[in-house]
Formats: sequence, C-alpha cells, structure tokens
Amino acid sequence: MRDGGARSGIVSLITDFGLSDTYVGQIKASLLTVDRGLQLVDLTHQIPAQDVAEAAFQLATAWEAFPPGTVHLVVVDPGVGTPRRPVAFAYCGHLFVTPDNGLGTFVLQDQEPEQLVVLDRPEFHRPRVSKTFHGRDVFAPVAGHLASGRELTEVGTEVPPSSLVRLPLPAVEREERVVRGPVVSIDHFGNCRTLIHPEDVPWPRDKVWVRCGSAMVRGIVETYGSVPEEHTLALFGSHGGLEIAVRMGNAARAWEITRGMFVEVMPAE
Amino acid sequence: MRDGGARSGIVSLITDFGLSDTYVGQIKASLLTVDRGLQLVDLTHQIPAQDVAEAAFQLATAWEAFPPGTVHLVVVDPGVGTPRRPVAFAYCGHLFVTPDNGLGTFVLQDQEPEQLVVLDRPEFHRPRVSKTFHGRDVFAPVAGHLASGRELTEVGTEVPPSSLVRLPLPAVEREERVVRGPVVSIDHFGNCRTLIHPEDVPWPRDKVWVRCGSAMVRGIVETYGSVPEEHTLALFGSHGGLEIAVRMGNAARAWEITRGMFVEVMPAE
Amino acid sequence: MRDGGARSGIVSLITDFGLSDTYVGQIKASLLTVDRGLQLVDLTHQIPAQDVAEAAFQLATAWEAFPPGTVHLVVVDPGVGTPRRPVAFAYCGHLFVTPDNGLGTFVLQDQEPEQLVVLDRPEFHRPRVSKTFHGRDVFAPVAGHLASGRELTEVGTEVPPSSLVRLPLPAVEREERVVRGPVVSIDHFGNCRTLIHPEDVPWPRDKVWVRCGSAMVRGIVETYGSVPEEHTLALFGSHGGLEIAVRMGNAARAWEITRGMFVEVMPAE
Repeated sequence: MRDGGARSGIVSLITDFGLSDTYVGQIKASLLTVDRGLQLVDLTHQIPAQDVAEAAFQLATAWEAFPPGTVHLVVVDPGVGTPRRPVAFAYCGHLFVTPDNGLGTFVLQDQEPEQLVVLDRPEFHRPRVSKTFHGRDVFAPVAGHLASGRELTEVGTEVPPSSLVRLPLPAVEREERVVRGPVVSIDHFGNCRTLIHPEDVPWPRDKVWVRCGSAMVRGIVETYGSVPEEHTLALFGSHGGLEIAVRMGNAARAWEITRGMFVEVMPAE
Repeated sequence: MRDGGARSGIVSLITDFGLSDTYVGQIKASLLTVDRGLQLVDLTHQIPAQDVAEAAFQLATAWEAFPPGTVHLVVVDPGVGTPRRPVAFAYCGHLFVTPDNGLGTFVLQDQEPEQLVVLDRPEFHRPRVSKTFHGRDVFAPVAGHLASGRELTEVGTEVPPSSLVRLPLPAVEREERVVRGPVVSIDHFGNCRTLIHPEDVPWPRDKVWVRCGSAMVRGIVETYGSVPEEHTLALFGSHGGLEIAVRMGNAARAWEITRGMFVEVMPAE
Repeated sequence: MRDGGARSGIVSLITDFGLSDTYVGQIKASLLTVDRGLQLVDLTHQIPAQDVAEAAFQLATAWEAFPPGTVHLVVVDPGVGTPRRPVAFAYCGHLFVTPDNGLGTFVLQDQEPEQLVVLDRPEFHRPRVSKTFHGRDVFAPVAGHLASGRELTEVGTEVPPSSLVRLPLPAVEREERVVRGPVVSIDHFGNCRTLIHPEDVPWPRDKVWVRCGSAMVRGIVETYGSVPEEHTLALFGSHGGLEIAVRMGNAARAWEITRGMFVEVMPAE
C-alpha cells in the first residue's frame, strides 16, 4: 500500500539523545513549528549512543500499537554530516522517517517498504540546516509535514524500495533437535528477548527445554505468574519473540546474560 | 460522589516500566488509539520494579494537583496473568484505573472509593489481549474510554467499594512524649518523607526535636531557606507530611536514611 | 519588543526535579488546570540539583528552536521560600518564567530583556500557595496564563529590565596568540561545550590547534564524520559554540575533561 496521506496526527520518537540535554526538546520544537496540534509520543531516548541495532529492535516492539497513519521518527545517526541518505518510507499504513542506516530492519524483516523517498527537498527542512543536528533540522520538520498530511512524494524523491539499507537479521536456526537464536535486546526488567517466534518451535510448549548460558528451564509458559517468585521462566513476550525472565527478578543479572548470547530450545524426552 | 462522566480529558500515568524500553509508549499508543485528543501527563515511570507501595505513595503526592475528571492510570502489576482483578474506581471526582493490588491505598487512606468496577468488558480492551502486558491491552484502553467520557458502569461491573484491595497503612503512633512514623519514600533530592501530618504533632513547632537515625534537629521550619546551606531541617513537605531534608544537600545520603526507618518528634523542654 | 500577547500555545520546561518523583507531573497539572489545550515540551528535568548555571546554559541551547510566542518555564529554585523574586520577562518574542536567580543569563548574554515583571498577583497563582513548591503553585499557573494569551503586565508588576539578576558570564579571552574559554556544559555524548563562537577565532579553521587538558587536535572541522571513528575533534556544535568531541566516543571520559576546564585555540604555524 503506497502512501495515501491518511494520518493519525501522532508522531512517535526514538533517539539516542538521552534526557539530560535539550536535544529531544529541540526536535519537538521543530515538529511543533510545522504543526502545533501534533501528538508527540516518546518511545525511548535511551538507546545507547549510536546503537542502530538496538533502536531498530525497539522500534519493532512498538510501532504496531499505534493507529495507522502514525509517523515514526527515529534518529540514531552516527553518520550525520556524511553522505548517508535521509529517507522516509511507508509500510503497512505507517510512515517512518530515519537516516538510511538500517533502522527499519526489524520492522520490515523480510519485507520491503511499499514506498521509499530520499529527503532532498530543502523547503521541508528548517531554513538553516546545521552540519551536526539533522534530527532537528531535517528529520523532525519532514516528520511534522508528513504527520500533518503531506505525502511521501511531496517531501522527497522516490527511489527503489530495495535500495533501503538493512542490517543483517540475526538468524533463528532451526535444526532437527534444536532451535537457536541470539538475545537481541534486554529490557528494563532484565528480560532477555529473542526473535524466536512460536512458529519456530515445532514441539509442545510443555515438552521443551530452554537454555541460555547457565539458565535452563523446562517448558514455555504463558505468564510471569505461572512460576513461583524468583523462579526463571521462558515465555513468548509482548514483542512476539521468546524471552527468558525471572518472576519478580532480573534474568540478565541473575544469569549474567548479555546481548548476543544464544537461547536454545530443545525437545524434552 | 459517584461517577457522573464529567472529564478533564487528561490522563496521568505511573508505571514501573522505566524509560529505556517502549512499554510506556505502547501504553500511550493504546490511549491515543481510543482518543487522539487526550492530554497525557507522565507522573513517573521509575517506580522500582513491582514496588506497589512506592507507586501508591507517588500517586498520593500528585493526584490532587489535577483538575477533577482526570483519569489516573497506574500500572505496577506483578500479578499480570494471575487472577488479580483489573479495576477502576471513583474518588473525589477523580478516576483511577489499576490492577487491584493496593495502588489506591495512600489516596484513599481511611476512606472508601465512591464507586468500584471490575474491568470485565472486552469491548473496551484491545482486540487481542496478551497474557503479559495488560497495561497496554486492558488498562490503557479502558482509561482512554473513561477519559473521553464513558462512565465507570459502562466499562465494568460494579462491585462493593469495600472489596478494593488495600495495603497496610504505615501507622503514625502518637504517644504522650513522642510521635513516630516511618519514612515511606525518599525523593530525588534525598528528602525523607513520612505520613506524620501537622495535626499529629501537638507541640509548638519551634519546641520539638525531630530525630531519624543519627539525624537530630530542633524545630519544624517552614521553608528550606530557613536554615543555612548544608544544614539539616524538618518541615511539612509539599506532599503534606513531615520530611527530613538538607538544604542544598541530600539528607538520605548524608544521614544514611533508608525507607522504613522511623522519624520521631518529641517535645523539647 | 514588548509583550504583545501573540502565543504559540507551547510551554517548554526545564527543572532539576528529576523523573523519579511526581514533581514535574504536578507542575504540568498546574499548567493544564489553567489551559487544558497547551502543548507541553520537556527540555530536561535532569539539571543537577540547584545548578542554576547548568539550567541557564541548557535553556540557551534550545529556546530559539521554538516558534515565537512560546513560554519557557524554568524552575531551578534553591531560594524557594526566601525573598528572591518570582519573575517573567520577554525577549525576542519569547517569554520566560523563572525565579530571579540568573536563569536568563545565557539567553540574554549582553542584552537586557525587553520587559520584566514581578509575579505579585495571587489571582494568577494556585489558590493555596505552599512554602516549598512554587514551581507548582506560582510559576506553572503564571506560565499557563501567559501561554493562553495573558500579557506580562496582567500577571505581574513591571520593574526595570536592568534589575534582572544575572550570573557572571564565563568570559572568552582573546589574546594575540590564543583564544580561551571554559567548558560550560558536557552533554550526554560527552561533548564538551564552550561559549567560544566562530567570530572569536580570527585564524583559518584548518590552521589552528585546539587544546583542552591533555586533548589536542589540529583544525576545527565541520562534522563528526570528518574524522575516523574514535578520533578526537573540535567543531562548532549545534549550540553555536566550540566543542571538543570524540567521534563514536565520549570526549569527557576519554580525556577526563570536567566543567570549568579551559579550551584554548591557537594558530598553527
């Protein structure tokens, strides 16, 4: 579905700017300069500095909770001031405005955006564009114009959707006696999240072992409340993928799990 | 006063989800899916994980600052996926939407809510309710519907107000020569806050000793500015209760005060 | 330009209240009690406790990104409860509401506000003003009234603009063979920011040395991307002044730079 201009008036934001400086506020000032009536929703600004993969994952956890016609503005931009392209794309009725460095990877997975434009129209940027802060000067004003009803082809020049930069997707390996995928993100509660989805696991959920480092649990349960407090568990989390958690505790800390470690699911005899 | 449907259009939020993940943003997406025109106000998302008592205290510090008809959404939900009830209640013209685990304790004190409903109407929830994230799938959409004018009895089934779960209220003990109450919360500035209120202290404010651990001060003053910099003081804080503070300093750190330690007020001869 | 009452409907906020308590939410409740339709934009609430100079600097980085008619509410108020004046002033079409302790210093630099009032009209404050929380009870309601169209002279009594309290401005010293200014703020990325502006540096940008502590780089570049990863660089940052940074790294940490250390620019033979 190409962009048809229907909008929710909502802009979601992800950055690595943190909350101790005014950078995020300046981005919002840019958005509201375009349209004072927008609804701005912070997803997170605590992406580790320049960590494109984490931002791409966080975006994927959240975008579908918004109504169609929402604009998602993601500014993690280690290449600001280099020739990396500023882009916007449409996917499933949502719009995404980002530097072209892979931030759409986990949203799109093996799909392509329905429409992709390069943001090359200065009339939709701030009058004076700095060399160091395109979040405020390029991405935010364009997101504001899109959120107030402009179409993609107004704010940029169409290019082939296949030209969008993608990160390598962490593979989920399915072998005969094991399914294996890396921890891609660890949340605030210490829950260790993978991209192993229900359809990847061919065995009954109560007849598997799930292992990560020295953590090993029997069965995939449905809720945190299924095990006693402080017990370790595996479940399909709200992001859709398998996660390792400790009820009323912190699995990453308890088991010294870090991003990139593998989670394995094996049938239990 | 039972719920009459008058609304401010404002929803306040308290959670333990932190700011590094997108959980709070997903909750806001749910609220705005119901009504894009709501005003959303973060109270705090930095409640320690699953700390119902701290969330209940923080809610009590803030709700009265909002106009009547505000909906307060509080999601600290260690029991998600267990049979704990999702509820909404009315009190003094405000509405509260929470899991039924004691989050209303400090707002209500020795009162009962004027009306209490169990949120058992799936038509006011998200179409697909996950087992692990009722904040997004149940509580937020119901809060959204209430904030845009639905009445309590539309979104749930009325149950006796007395059935609302309450935490044990930390007692303030009044003896002949001492008034004693625990530190219930320590704020960002290190101010140590109790539930000892002005009416609990029968002696002139300049003729008492206030003690907590090794901190001991003479008199209860009116402002932080009443003592020299770095001096310790006691005053009735903006939350209404007695607090121990250090002017331009951090009382909790200086005096190694932790939650639960007792503050004592004694008459000075 | 004196205040003419044109407003953007936006209020920006800077405080030292942090995000773990409800103080900021209570301030927003006060603002929305006056006008439920305001757009509230957080600049930062993580000013170190009572650090007026840091707040004054952060305000200066951000205010110009907002549309004219925006109200900037800055509450870092170590003197709450003492006779320091609550004030509001107009400058370049923006309004500022603060305790009179120097928070406007870096916005105004060597200019004076166009109009200054003392907030002495209780009808624009909350009905009951606490002794300890003027952010909620005085500054926020006045900011709300200004943002919804009241004029400065309605909410306070005019006093001479020259009576506004100012901090000493960290001097940029220009000698024959060196320009020197202190690091006034270090951002989330570890970028070390000064008030040395392009017009302070009389030599070609590629023919200077920039030094701070043990960090020494040749030339002032235009973008972070101008040097290889992990290399140190100097550039004029988005706040307008010279900053020392490490590409994809943290200059403050790498070079142990702290606020107040001097940055020197010298011609290279």
